[in-house]
Amino acid sequence: MTETDAVVIGAGPVGLFQVFQLGLLEIKAHVVDSLPYAGGQCMELYPDKPIYDIPGLPICTGQELAERLLRQVAPFEPVFHYRQVVTSLARQPDGRFLLETSTGTRLLTRTVFIAAGVGAFQPRTLKVEGIERFQGTQLFHDVGDPATFADKNLVIVGGDDAAVEWALNFCAAHADRHPHKARRVTLLHRRDVFRSSDESLTQLRQSFEQRAIDLVVGQITGFTEAEGKLVALKVTDPDNVTRDLALDMLLVLLGVSPKLGPVADWGLDLERKQLQVDTEKFSTNVPGIFAVGDINTYPGKKKLIVCGFHECVLAAFGAAPLIFPDKKILLQYTTTSPRLHALLGVAKTASD
Amino acid sequence: MTETDAVVIGAGPVGLFQVFQLGLLEIKAHVVDSLPYAGGQCMELYPDKPIYDIPGLPICTGQELAERLLRQVAPFEPVFHYRQVVTSLARQPDGRFLLETSTGTRLLTRTVFIAAGVGAFQPRTLKVEGIERFQGTQLFHDVGDPATFADKNLVIVGGDDAAVEWALNFCAAHADRHPHKARRVTLLHRRDVFRSSDESLTQLRQSFEQRAIDLVVGQITGFTEAEGKLVALKVTDPDNVTRDLALDMLLVLLGVSPKLGPVADWGLDLERKQLQVDTEKFSTNVPGIFAVGDINTYPGKKKLIVCGFHECVLAAFGAAPLIFPDKKILLQYTTTSPRLHALLGVAKTASD
Repeated sequence: MTETDAVVIGAGPVGLFQVFQLGLLEIKAHVVDSLPYAGGQCMELYPDKPIYDIPGLPICTGQELAERLLRQVAPFEPVFHYRQVVTSLARQPDGRFLLETSTGTRLLTRTVFIAAGVGAFQPRTLKVEGIERFQGTQLFHDVGDPATFADKNLVIVGGDDAAVEWALNFCAAHADRHPHKARRVTLLHRRDVFRSSDESLTQLRQSFEQRAIDLVVGQITGFTEAEGKLVALKVTDPDNVTRDLALDMLLVLLGVSPKLGPVADWGLDLERKQLQVDTEKFSTNVPGIFAVGDINTYPGKKKLIVCGFHECVLAAFGAAPLIFPDKKILLQYTTTSPRLHALLGVAKTASD
Repeated sequence: MTETDAVVIGAGPVGLFQVFQLGLLEIKAHVVDSLPYAGGQCMELYPDKPIYDIPGLPICTGQELAERLLRQVAPFEPVFHYRQVVTSLARQPDGRFLLETSTGTRLLTRTVFIAAGVGAFQPRTLKVEGIERFQGTQLFHDVGDPATFADKNLVIVGGDDAAVEWALNFCAAHADRHPHKARRVTLLHRRDVFRSSDESLTQLRQSFEQRAIDLVVGQITGFTEAEGKLVALKVTDPDNVTRDLALDMLLVLLGVSPKLGPVADWGLDLERKQLQVDTEKFSTNVPGIFAVGDINTYPGKKKLIVCGFHECVLAAFGAAPLIFPDKKILLQYTTTSPRLHALLGVAKTASD
């Protein structure tokens, strides 16, 4: 079990800036996120799409914003716990919180900052009765180790970026894309419409024409099993004709959907799945638990990243007296404060 | 008289972002500022010093921040009224506000956003009885047109950046610095300590040694007039000896000091010179007048630029129903909204 002063739940832009603001007040933070990387919704839903309303960044992609914020928090050396969701949060007799995650991380902390946005992202799963028993052997909802699919008869399900990109990556006709190649790639989608970059869509069409990738339009309505193995899918096409599709491996890339998850069970005041907070400290009704960004609500709330940034500032100042009860907490400016310069690891400039 | 929907008082970072947020809601804004350029305190007090706590900008000078925000507001074509302060603000019978400035600009507006920071910046003036009568002929508190000082016997008063830079600029020994040269440059400061960049300070010391610039340490305690002209200053040195210093022109560059000014007389609730606002709309007690940034106060207030940015968002949404009473105001996202893309003048991306 690790002891810490603060845990930030969510490594999206607001969670990252929470780490930064805590750092300026000399509060070290651990960060938990369900995704394998920082950036949250920005990275998951629009990594390449421009955002235009971050102050001072007239145009910035989600990925760039995440990278910029990661650089900004680097001096404070936050500890990231990726690919896990918080499964329980319990007040201890000494007033601290014991927080546990789905992968067994245990953190004993004085304060918690919920920056979980719309909730933890979870892959959309294939809804075909009984097929879940092949999860992890022949059925996968993320790529994980690409070697798993090498030289296999692979069916990829999906119509968006991830499905298109991995179909091309695993296709032997595109040698430059990825070292691991499947023996055969079939892309299965409910209609013949795909979403990806223009370049990838052009490559995909050529691959269909050259039969380098098989296109199957339809929905999985059942499967065939033999000797405990998944050997074929039953695919029903738009004309309601059902055919067998043989396979070794099934990779389902239907995107992610957010789930609020156990946050709903922590005794916090909720209003339409949002956590109610005050506007002085952005504290929930439980002292020591703060909520910032899209997951909170208060009069006037707008779900914008720039508003979340402000909430982080006031939440950090709200939390500081709980961590340093005997210290007077002063607002200092990064432009002028030698103390903050030391924390940020920036040298004095020659003209200082 | 110009009719408009919004006037923003103050062209600092927060005033500029107020213009941006109003623009996203299709509200055009006029901006009034006492300085000759945008950027406010950032430009005036620390143009070259890094700021480290703007989210997504790990390091950024005040000048760079101002430039970035000016680029961001450009699509909304705000009208800037520089070098003037708001001298009166009066509610009209139709509910609008008539706003007048020190240079005669008259704006009839539905809403006002006070983003005036610590107040309007005004040059610190020379406090010597009677000398003010030479203001504009031989006494100046800013450089204005440098040709005014060409070939003159010039005394510059001050010890900071502006005084040092202009002493070097007007000095014939530094031909590369500026086209206009004085006949003689004297730098007058109360002590032999100057603040500027290392490079400029080195140049200044060399200029003193080579007698290219005269250094006089002391304070102006009087002056001599002949035929209606200022012909000499009486300068008292640290040993209390007073000497005459002949001159043609006197350029006083003592920096600026902020003045809250007439804002104090507009019937707005004040608390220690700060405007009291709510945290839902950042409205003052006068409907239609909002206050954002360092000039406002509310429970939890921190005087940080990032907090001002958030306040702009909620103030814009607070103002929109006053400007468009019959329109439903929706929050749209710059990443996805075609309407906002059109307003921002950004083309659809190929993959949309």
